[in-house]
Amino acid sequence: MPPVDGPTRLYGELGDPIDQVRMPGFLNAAWARAGIDAVLVPMRVAAADLASAVAGLKRLGNLDGLILTIPHKQAMLGLVDRVLPMGRRIGAINAVRREADGSWTGEMFDGLGFVAGLHGLGHDPAGRRVLQVGAGGAGAAIAHALADAGVAGLDLYDIAREKAERLAAAVAAAVPGVAARWVAEPAPEGCQLVLNATPLGMGAADALPVAVDRLAPGAVCADVVTKPIVTPFLQAAARRGHAVMPGHVMAAPQAALFARFFGRAID
Amino acid sequence: MPPVDGPTRLYGELGDPIDQVRMPGFLNAAWARAGIDAVLVPMRVAAADLASAVAGLKRLGNLDGLILTIPHKQAMLGLVDRVLPMGRRIGAINAVRREADGSWTGEMFDGLGFVAGLHGLGHDPAGRRVLQVGAGGAGAAIAHALADAGVAGLDLYDIAREKAERLAAAVAAAVPGVAARWVAEPAPEGCQLVLNATPLGMGAADALPVAVDRLAPGAVCADVVTKPIVTPFLQAAARRGHAVMPGHVMAAPQAALFARFFGRAID
Repeated sequence: MPPVDGPTRLYGELGDPIDQVRMPGFLNAAWARAGIDAVLVPMRVAAADLASAVAGLKRLGNLDGLILTIPHKQAMLGLVDRVLPMGRRIGAINAVRREADGSWTGEMFDGLGFVAGLHGLGHDPAGRRVLQVGAGGAGAAIAHALADAGVAGLDLYDIAREKAERLAAAVAAAVPGVAARWVAEPAPEGCQLVLNATPLGMGAADALPVAVDRLAPGAVCADVVTKPIVTPFLQAAARRGHAVMPGHVMAAPQAALFARFFGRAID
Repeated sequence: MPPVDGPTRLYGELGDPIDQVRMPGFLNAAWARAGIDAVLVPMRVAAADLASAVAGLKRLGNLDGLILTIPHKQAMLGLVDRVLPMGRRIGAINAVRREADGSWTGEMFDGLGFVAGLHGLGHDPAGRRVLQVGAGGAGAAIAHALADAGVAGLDLYDIAREKAERLAAAVAAAVPGVAARWVAEPAPEGCQLVLNATPLGMGAADALPVAVDRLAPGAVCADVVTKPIVTPFLQAAARRGHAVMPGHVMAAPQAALFARFFGRAID
């Protein structure tokens, strides 16, 4: 891998904290393998500093794009000139790029990365009934992407009932063919895809997001949590013979989506 | 070399243009060899954008320092909290770092890099009489560093007479033991070190900065021009048996000085 030098094109990943992000290592290794002279560097930016940091970064003539992680995905919406459809639907973006005319375009790839991860493991979500637990930021992106991918039905549960109701209504309005609805409890019966989009599983003492003994035979189980790589939920589901998708499976397809969005495709 | 990832500490080199800089490749390779997880990335910033770009960059919590190249070395003086002695004397800085208290300190290493390059080739400038052609930005840094290094005398010539006079007076005031003076023509007779600090030699049709047939026997010849690596001046001097120092020899010692200033020494 040749070192970063004068002609290298620059990308930044903005978040706070930032040490834990792994997309730079992933994308940089992929760009190096593809012979693309570009680098994604971590940039720790506090929530209150986002606007001034981005104003400065836009002055860097060789900086072609940014990736946004917590807590910047919503706030970044107000700092671009154009938001692509998925970002508009979700009200958040996790990547922005500089266009040839100097303007900035943003889009949200969290959900598309999840769906691409499912496809990568051979699980096409089209036509499946889905139970999704968690209707926060990541959950919203995934629910919309699953609807676009043609799921038959989408049951949404969240301990904050309002969030799940609002997301179900938004998904139903955006993709009329999908039966998206709020459910009063996370009941997995009859669902062929069951996914956790909450932080449950990051803590050792966390409850399981779904009762695994109620899973339908053959149901695929997925998790957005990346630490631990295999959550207690996935572990319990796998022990019962279910196919599982750990959260970190999303990294590779998401990197490929970012690279294509930036015009420096790795696949 | 492991790829840049979340915990990597960030440094930027600001200039316009930027594609031609080679310090990032040099310093990144050295840091990688030393097992230091830091990266220097190129940042193209127009002169008019320096203040706003730097204001934004200061908001990046994992960015620990900047290197400045043309056209930012003077303007950066106004954007730091503290300037170390060499930078104050020259009125320009080419590196800044964030201190533990969050304040920013700047210093100028162009001249120190030149002197370190001489030492690296076994040419201690102490006690030598020097002819320096060129009293611009790079020339000022080198003249002050040579004076600090204990040269016996410093003859300064520039086609802009005033520049050479002003620099001679400044050096004489800063280092009283050194006989620094303006000279009316670039006369190399009696000088043991002769250096070109002008752009002469970058163009194929450029005149030589000094008449090589008038060099004193054993005089060392040095150049700040880095492209071509061996300038016509150095080529002509070498053919007459003089030891020469091409401008790119400064890169390694300058990288070591930057790394030490940043608290991430490579030597």
